[in-house]
Amino acid sequence: MERSMSSINDRVRLLRNYLLRNGLCAFIFPSTDPHQGEYVPEHWMTRQWISGFDGSAGTAVVTLSDAALWTDSRYFIAAEAQLKGTPFQLMKDGLPETPSIEEWLCEKVKRLKSEKVKNLVVGIDGEVYTPEDIEQMEAAFGKAGIKLRTDLDPAEELWTDRPPIPKNKVEIQPLEFAGETAQSKIERVRQALREKGADSILISQLDEIAWLLNLRGSDVHCNPVFVSYVLLTLDEVTLFIDEEKLDDSVRNYLKEIGVKVKPYKDPSKSPLKGETPKVLPLREGSGGSLISSLKSIKNAAEIEGFRRAMIRDGVAMVKFLRWLKPAVEMGGETELSIDRKLTALRAEQPLYRGLSFDTIAAYGPHGAIVHYEATPETDVPLEPKGLLLLDSGAQYQDGTTDITRTIALGPLTDEERLDYTLVLKGHIRLALTRFPDGISGTQIDALARYAMWQHGINYGHGTGHGVGSYLCVHEGPHQIRHTWKPAPLHAGMTVTNEPGIYRAGKHGVRIENTMLIVEDGETEFGKFLRLEPLTLCPIDLTPVIWDMMTQEEVDYINAYHKKVYDALAPYLNEEERMSLPQPLQKASPCPSKGGENKIVK
Amino acid sequence: MERSMSSINDRVRLLRNYLLRNGLCAFIFPSTDPHQGEYVPEHWMTRQWISGFDGSAGTAVVTLSDAALWTDSRYFIAAEAQLKGTPFQLMKDGLPETPSIEEWLCEKVKRLKSEKVKNLVVGIDGEVYTPEDIEQMEAAFGKAGIKLRTDLDPAEELWTDRPPIPKNKVEIQPLEFAGETAQSKIERVRQALREKGADSILISQLDEIAWLLNLRGSDVHCNPVFVSYVLLTLDEVTLFIDEEKLDDSVRNYLKEIGVKVKPYKDPSKSPLKGETPKVLPLREGSGGSLISSLKSIKNAAEIEGFRRAMIRDGVAMVKFLRWLKPAVEMGGETELSIDRKLTALRAEQPLYRGLSFDTIAAYGPHGAIVHYEATPETDVPLEPKGLLLLDSGAQYQDGTTDITRTIALGPLTDEERLDYTLVLKGHIRLALTRFPDGISGTQIDALARYAMWQHGINYGHGTGHGVGSYLCVHEGPHQIRHTWKPAPLHAGMTVTNEPGIYRAGKHGVRIENTMLIVEDGETEFGKFLRLEPLTLCPIDLTPVIWDMMTQEEVDYINAYHKKVYDALAPYLNEEERMSLPQPLQKASPCPSKGGENKIVK
Repeated sequence: MERSMSSINDRVRLLRNYLLRNGLCAFIFPSTDPHQGEYVPEHWMTRQWISGFDGSAGTAVVTLSDAALWTDSRYFIAAEAQLKGTPFQLMKDGLPETPSIEEWLCEKVKRLKSEKVKNLVVGIDGEVYTPEDIEQMEAAFGKAGIKLRTDLDPAEELWTDRPPIPKNKVEIQPLEFAGETAQSKIERVRQALREKGADSILISQLDEIAWLLNLRGSDVHCNPVFVSYVLLTLDEVTLFIDEEKLDDSVRNYLKEIGVKVKPYKDPSKSPLKGETPKVLPLREGSGGSLISSLKSIKNAAEIEGFRRAMIRDGVAMVKFLRWLKPAVEMGGETELSIDRKLTALRAEQPLYRGLSFDTIAAYGPHGAIVHYEATPETDVPLEPKGLLLLDSGAQYQDGTTDITRTIALGPLTDEERLDYTLVLKGHIRLALTRFPDGISGTQIDALARYAMWQHGINYGHGTGHGVGSYLCVHEGPHQIRHTWKPAPLHAGMTVTNEPGIYRAGKHGVRIENTMLIVEDGETEFGKFLRLEPLTLCPIDLTPVIWDMMTQEEVDYINAYHKKVYDALAPYLNEEERMSLPQPLQKASPCPSKGGENKIVK
Repeated sequence: MERSMSSINDRVRLLRNYLLRNGLCAFIFPSTDPHQGEYVPEHWMTRQWISGFDGSAGTAVVTLSDAALWTDSRYFIAAEAQLKGTPFQLMKDGLPETPSIEEWLCEKVKRLKSEKVKNLVVGIDGEVYTPEDIEQMEAAFGKAGIKLRTDLDPAEELWTDRPPIPKNKVEIQPLEFAGETAQSKIERVRQALREKGADSILISQLDEIAWLLNLRGSDVHCNPVFVSYVLLTLDEVTLFIDEEKLDDSVRNYLKEIGVKVKPYKDPSKSPLKGETPKVLPLREGSGGSLISSLKSIKNAAEIEGFRRAMIRDGVAMVKFLRWLKPAVEMGGETELSIDRKLTALRAEQPLYRGLSFDTIAAYGPHGAIVHYEATPETDVPLEPKGLLLLDSGAQYQDGTTDITRTIALGPLTDEERLDYTLVLKGHIRLALTRFPDGISGTQIDALARYAMWQHGINYGHGTGHGVGSYLCVHEGPHQIRHTWKPAPLHAGMTVTNEPGIYRAGKHGVRIENTMLIVEDGETEFGKFLRLEPLTLCPIDLTPVIWDMMTQEEVDYINAYHKKVYDALAPYLNEEERMSLPQPLQKASPCPSKGGENKIVK
């Protein structure tokens, strides 16, 4: 979309006329869509359209007299540049002096009032907010005597070249990969509804719909989902979707499994002829929605699919790593060029369906920018020194992958080696931890941080998130995180293990494997669990300060690299096999130490 | 109070007449008092009066037709016995089949309705509930068409020999111990009120009142507090208290610091002549009340007081431990007799004011009962074998103590030694942990559990709680706990470090030191903290399995025992000094291990 200053100024002028015509004094443009997805289809990028700011997180607010955009520290610099010359003032979220949107709006609107603006009405597109969000806003504005109107979408009228809602084809996820029929999933949901005393559930999260119906799509960047809603009652299932997206095979499949099809429209916002006497709230306090909780426990076929996908992904990664260092030494490689190379190697793999997120190939200081994505403007050549942080993943029809490796391209500073070693120790500690079934990820998060905490180091992001089965790479409801995530951990869940250290202007280190939560015995104190690595790719050992590693940690690395070798060797040529790390021969000076972590079976 | 069956039956009969006379169909008796304290003065023990059940937690409900008592697993056996032959049915809290009080009441009351009972009104004494509790109940009952009446206290009329509200004298806590004048504390509270846009705060927690006004009392068992309320506004402070409790010195002191005195009555329940235009809620979501947060950060004088008190407490403990083993070998000692001995040794210490809680002296299988308190019925002789769990503490005018030691009275089983070693490893790990300023105790709780988790062992209680300065031994708002406690940890807070392992029918192990949270340097990643032991008493090393201990853990024990020796030696005679542990000479086979926990300063 066109993002020149002039076009932004025109849009804001047009919007203000629109506000006057509709009796509004302000409008709020968030970065959400009706389906609360992580990636938003262009059709719903109204905040970017009105403000020109294209970061993944931000909210634009336009009043009759003012305009401002809120975003977080990740985007301060980019937003500053993109808003230059527009009517939008940058509001730096998270700084003490920054007013909340509600505070700012109330103050501006009060001023408008003194200027004899009659209608103290703020507009939002209700479809892109959750009911909870809307309630909160109504409460906040209500105090200041401001009304909220939720049934308007100015972009519909003013955004002339607005991209349509995607109409890509929907495809069936075969039972061999899904592992459970849609009918069986629907029955389990109904059982849960009965237990909760609810008659129906309205599903707007696209990955929940795709999981429930064993369907996949390609409407959303990196996410094999399709734009739709599902209303599931005790005796009916209705899919609200644009008919164009369904070919005969899918239409027949839906008929077979007894799913009715209706045009795409948020059923909660449209008259449902009494179809929803008692809708179960989309989100329940206790960590995640009903569907996301069911979806988070992978069945045997999904787990097998993950294992196969991880072999293919590991093969691509090993081929890439073998290629990387010599290529960098020859020169001419950049963040973007190696991203293309890695993507090409993954694309060669069977069942490859695309990336699961935009690759983070961050060299040197870029590694310290947690959400860095190389662009032609930021791209830098890779030199045979320092650290490359490479966070990437793919969608395969039988599983989704998410892996981070930090690679020494040559000589390192002592600080780079220390940070790398502490991150590796944290990653291994969490992988070695046995923990009680059903505790929250918040309760084990510190184990990934302990080693770096002792050195006065910490990181601001979470330690782990769920990964979908040929679905979203970030999936709930559970997380391993320092902030409170109540969703309990259970066997069958996938979760990443990705501690990191980031030194602004210097480097970043992150080591991430996707793990499977597995049972690890039952004692008089209950069931216990541990994390088993699904990801199959060597961890670079050249940066490790071995004096800081315990024998137990060395043993873990050896066992993991043996597992990687055994799984990948059959798919690699002799040269590639040779490139895999051999077991380390560090002797054990202190067998006693085993006591600290002995697993009693 | 008389607790025979007949008297209980009489009381229930009288209560039902009372219900009919007052148009009620049921009444609820909780175990709380108007000040939400941990210990309840006898005057408010109405649940015990009506039901005969004397556990610390429980709720009695009497309808016109039924009666039931809810309590948790700690008290199932005791309640079973005490309710025998009374109209009360035992409701086992926490079991899936057990209905909630609301569910049970609604069902019973519906039945009454069909029996033509007109008034569907349930009564409670509103004074002993928080406003939040009352709102929740009104909501729950409202759904079932049941009204809640909150202004009645049947015990006032029916409990003929009801103990009066305590009228013990209040005393001034000298500034040398309090470290900050009441005027200064009042000013800090007012500052906080202004920042929160509130005009006043109503304080009902007795330890908060005692801290704010630098006063102490003796109205509550083991807690040096006095029954009262405080209403603090931006320009006035009013103490609601029975005048009899104040002698001239205190009355003059209150006058000097500008505190008005009014008769004891909950001001929120009585007309306040517009004194509270905008009362700040007693509890704010963000972990604890305003006052408890201020109180939790100890000032220099309070910390010095703790250190002095810990020396006196340690001296008493060392004298006790030196006496214990020979005494047990001679025979004739029991759980109650050693409790009396320890209490006597503490009572000899200067500034001793009593126990901070009832001693838990639990021998053998009793150690597995987390809240065990020996009685003449349960008391057992101590034999020269097995483990004694001893959790005790005292109130000194300059500090409150809380310490648990588990002592080998003789030969141990391998399981006892394993459990002891794992608890010690957890205690040390937490004590060695450096952590970021401001995180929640929930985030470090796992570090105390890691070692035992690896062996499939866990414990159900929290790992640490705040300790008051000559106030309550359990003090908030912070905790180190597996369940979510948002209150952030900061330097100057006290917190206990008390992991444990409990094997029903066999033994219990708990090792507890009271710790002070101290600053541990600042890096580019922020401020870091660690826990410094305040408790000064040797840890029994005879049960330790040394092969399971790392050199770092041995070094910690040596350093702690040296600290204990240096602090206590001047106050001990030669024999007692000799009884203190000498440094262990375990050589370090693996210096590398140090890397895991090096503190970078």
